[in-house]
Amino acid sequence: MTALSGAIVLGPNQYGKAENRVVRIHRENARHEIRDVNVSTTLRGDFAAAHLEGDQSAVLPTDSQKNTAYAFAKDRLGAIEDYGLDLARHFASRFAAVDCARIDIEEYLWQRATVAGREHDHTWIRRGQEVRTAAVTATADEAWVIAGLKDLTLLKSTGSAFEGFLVDEYTTLRPAADRVLATTVTVEWRYTATDIAWDTTYADVRALLIDRFADVDSKALQQTLFEMGKAVLEAHPPIAEIRLSAPNNHHFAYDLAPFGLPNPNEVFHAADRPYGLIQASVLRTDAPDAGPSWQKGAA
Amino acid sequence: MTALSGAIVLGPNQYGKAENRVVRIHRENARHEIRDVNVSTTLRGDFAAAHLEGDQSAVLPTDSQKNTAYAFAKDRLGAIEDYGLDLARHFASRFAAVDCARIDIEEYLWQRATVAGREHDHTWIRRGQEVRTAAVTATADEAWVIAGLKDLTLLKSTGSAFEGFLVDEYTTLRPAADRVLATTVTVEWRYTATDIAWDTTYADVRALLIDRFADVDSKALQQTLFEMGKAVLEAHPPIAEIRLSAPNNHHFAYDLAPFGLPNPNEVFHAADRPYGLIQASVLRTDAPDAGPSWQKGAA
Amino acid sequence: MTALSGAIVLGPNQYGKAENRVVRIHRENARHEIRDVNVSTTLRGDFAAAHLEGDQSAVLPTDSQKNTAYAFAKDRLGAIEDYGLDLARHFASRFAAVDCARIDIEEYLWQRATVAGREHDHTWIRRGQEVRTAAVTATADEAWVIAGLKDLTLLKSTGSAFEGFLVDEYTTLRPAADRVLATTVTVEWRYTATDIAWDTTYADVRALLIDRFADVDSKALQQTLFEMGKAVLEAHPPIAEIRLSAPNNHHFAYDLAPFGLPNPNEVFHAADRPYGLIQASVLRTDAPDAGPSWQKGAA
Amino acid sequence: MTALSGAIVLGPNQYGKAENRVVRIHRENARHEIRDVNVSTTLRGDFAAAHLEGDQSAVLPTDSQKNTAYAFAKDRLGAIEDYGLDLARHFASRFAAVDCARIDIEEYLWQRATVAGREHDHTWIRRGQEVRTAAVTATADEAWVIAGLKDLTLLKSTGSAFEGFLVDEYTTLRPAADRVLATTVTVEWRYTATDIAWDTTYADVRALLIDRFADVDSKALQQTLFEMGKAVLEAHPPIAEIRLSAPNNHHFAYDLAPFGLPNPNEVFHAADRPYGLIQASVLRTDAPDAGPSWQKGAA
Repeated sequence: MTALSGAIVLGPNQYGKAENRVVRIHRENARHEIRDVNVSTTLRGDFAAAHLEGDQSAVLPTDSQKNTAYAFAKDRLGAIEDYGLDLARHFASRFAAVDCARIDIEEYLWQRATVAGREHDHTWIRRGQEVRTAAVTATADEAWVIAGLKDLTLLKSTGSAFEGFLVDEYTTLRPAADRVLATTVTVEWRYTATDIAWDTTYADVRALLIDRFADVDSKALQQTLFEMGKAVLEAHPPIAEIRLSAPNNHHFAYDLAPFGLPNPNEVFHAADRPYGLIQASVLRTDAPDAGPSWQKGAA
Repeated sequence: MTALSGAIVLGPNQYGKAENRVVRIHRENARHEIRDVNVSTTLRGDFAAAHLEGDQSAVLPTDSQKNTAYAFAKDRLGAIEDYGLDLARHFASRFAAVDCARIDIEEYLWQRATVAGREHDHTWIRRGQEVRTAAVTATADEAWVIAGLKDLTLLKSTGSAFEGFLVDEYTTLRPAADRVLATTVTVEWRYTATDIAWDTTYADVRALLIDRFADVDSKALQQTLFEMGKAVLEAHPPIAEIRLSAPNNHHFAYDLAPFGLPNPNEVFHAADRPYGLIQASVLRTDAPDAGPSWQKGAA
Repeated sequence: MTALSGAIVLGPNQYGKAENRVVRIHRENARHEIRDVNVSTTLRGDFAAAHLEGDQSAVLPTDSQKNTAYAFAKDRLGAIEDYGLDLARHFASRFAAVDCARIDIEEYLWQRATVAGREHDHTWIRRGQEVRTAAVTATADEAWVIAGLKDLTLLKSTGSAFEGFLVDEYTTLRPAADRVLATTVTVEWRYTATDIAWDTTYADVRALLIDRFADVDSKALQQTLFEMGKAVLEAHPPIAEIRLSAPNNHHFAYDLAPFGLPNPNEVFHAADRPYGLIQASVLRTDAPDAGPSWQKGAA
Repeated sequence: MTALSGAIVLGPNQYGKAENRVVRIHRENARHEIRDVNVSTTLRGDFAAAHLEGDQSAVLPTDSQKNTAYAFAKDRLGAIEDYGLDLARHFASRFAAVDCARIDIEEYLWQRATVAGREHDHTWIRRGQEVRTAAVTATADEAWVIAGLKDLTLLKSTGSAFEGFLVDEYTTLRPAADRVLATTVTVEWRYTATDIAWDTTYADVRALLIDRFADVDSKALQQTLFEMGKAVLEAHPPIAEIRLSAPNNHHFAYDLAPFGLPNPNEVFHAADRPYGLIQASVLRTDAPDAGPSWQKGAA
């Protein structure tokens, strides 16, 4: 054990306003439109005086950041990637102390109510399938965009195995030639450009992820994730990298033998905890440097 | 203050196994089917010996109740109302000490993945819109069925007002001629029969609720709820009563005036707490007695 | 199946403002005091015009109810039972349409920070052990008070068994002579008076509940609950009735035999779902009628 | 927009079993002891064959990792840092494909029940104040230990200001000379050694954090966090670095003026969202390289 004796100094730091729940209704036409987001702003830069001396002269209040998020929603809340770019660039270019701004956005998706066989003009049902996300980082000169989704729960009732694994002295699991595979994926993909057709690309990436989950004859969740990621990169040259995080939502075949019943993968217990957690990334060999793209915390 | 001196005795009581997460896959055909439920069993009856003396001889373990729920899923997990009836009648008729059994079920709904333009045979996406529910109570001779839904979030961006309300010395709210109306409804309706087409009735009730939420020109959430309930009763004679619980998911128009921006109901803050909470029931004047239908707890 | 043809009418209904997060600091002295509550107001009465015609003239806005909760906190937020009585009586006596008001309160408890060996004057740490609750109902003439607690998690590592239970064809559980007993109790007790020393009674009831959980040699959770309730009634004549709801937080001894390790009740898996759920009440034979005390919903 | 054309390859990846809920009772003596943890295991290394070909021969099942966590709890679940070290070193040294293992642990703290004025031998109440954490990473040759806590909620009712901040065109906040400061901190500190008195150091760090929160006359949450971190480093030479993440749990003085009541910082609304979020680190200038200490995800 080495006792350290160096000076004690401020390290990486950041601050902002988290979880502004901004809803934008477009009502120019009888057929209204809605955007429903949860936006968090984060500023990085030189805030040493605030930490060391309590001097706030370079500190834009988080309350002002909140106001900015709502004010920008008036004219600029279209695709969340664009809204994030506008906010990030504003903060990064407007204040001397701010080197870098990061905007995290969750978008809650709505579908129009169907009434009397027709899509309603101004009534929606909140779709619960997945949350669309964006994480945009900007300096005064550059910007990086990550798009993504989370809370998308997928299940396949066959076409999944787990066999031939390493066995040690703590292994009691038996190989499964056919099992339920279920997960609630979080996926993020990094763009190399900012002039993307965000909404259509999002829809296509989502469809590709589901397609591969469904049709890959899975020998492990790892393999499925890699194929999901690969399909996205193959179809979308502006995407340099994709990261997937997938809990294995275990479905255990329930033992019905004591009750004289066979159970050929028909009745399952859906377990809560513990769960497997598989995380993988897929990327291009010529992917440009990610810069601060993936940096969520202060360091 | 009157001091009481009566004997201290056991009052109403019940017990069971809560939140069994049963998933049933039907795989007889290439096109699989899925039912995904969270089922809770509750027994009422004469369990005084267990409470007073620790004598378990009349107590069916909650573990056995769990096993029963999984075993019954093998052959009887179709519509959740039927599954609930089977379980409730089993417990209520099989054990001398059990007077009454209640089965609460939540069903998580899935939609087939669309892959290459076609519905997939064995892959689903969990629909997040609403949770379907059932609450079935049975004695040895009778049974009562409540169906319902929860977590259905609806929003309309116009066609809602709140004016002409009572004003007291604590009132600062100003009347709103046009506001966002949003809620996450919990609805339960009581049937007077057990030979219902459960799935199609559920679908129709859900559609009626959405229809009325959308098209009633709302002068208050109370009025909307009453119209939602009335429409269901009008269309479905076997339903005697319907109960609706609706938080008012407040969307406050954000004050953009300090930034020189008008805000004609376009930019809103979606608030968390506090929230209005409106609860109403609609029923028929000749509705038969509800018996233990609505009794969830021990008393 | 009997088709009903009776008129469709409004049934029981209620409304209010839920989850007002009111914090009251008393700062007259250097040693500040804090009360931190979550208060929900509910009004019942004649609101038919609002439901049937959209006429709000008898409807006090939930926003006004919120304002009242904050305004009353200025001078009257001491014991939550008293605060609830003040609010309930205000609403029930002030408005012609209101027959009955119910106030639900959760209180989050804080303990003073200890700094340099002394209790700090104005800094607290939020105690996480339990939430104190009150549910007060009043008409213009009468009032009923329920006090309680929730989220109190207790565990004993011995002194609990479960044996001699009923065995059916679905029973695979084996008797346990010694097991972990753990629960997260919700308890509510009904007073017959309103001139109670609320805070000291609360502390004593809480202590009695813990005492009995610890020292009763438990043959089942049912027995433990009854003894907990009985002890409270024996010690507190103004309490007419007590209700306990206790999930059985299962701790399963983990099977270490495959690894050559014995496990004499030392290593457990703390399971999430499913869980046993035991609910019991204990009451006096001369308990006065509960009136609307226990009615939480509209009906 | 530059289209990329590089090969598509597997990037960083990891997998493990998350949230094993292990409880260890020590019952050698009449006075039992309890350790209650939530442990997650993560393995990093060469698992390309599993991703690319579905070849599991180098993949230790997450089920085996779970078994290991429970088996190790039999003899080695003392301080969570030691338990984490044992598990991490086991995985990192035992399997050829594993380069690095990370163990994340949450510990839920219990206090003995006081019964009849004495600490009970085998009954506990779950303390809810904070969750103790550890994050241990090991390769075959090296190990890194981070300790921490989360969910610790602190509030001071005076001794906090926020003034002199930067004002832009979106700023409407007014300076506050005296405000409530409340937060729910997450703190992690990195040790430079593995032979630490973990439990006593934890207790001392916790006390220092609370001491500084209480006694620093705060000009901003940033300043408070820096002082909290600095105090820890000053007192504990083996700690190289500390990171603090602190939401600003806003308490807004409620406007009681419309009701004719003054509100000199007495009645507050405790808001949910949005909230300020301040993150800061404090470190020594001679802190050794952190290696993989802070890496939670695959990349």
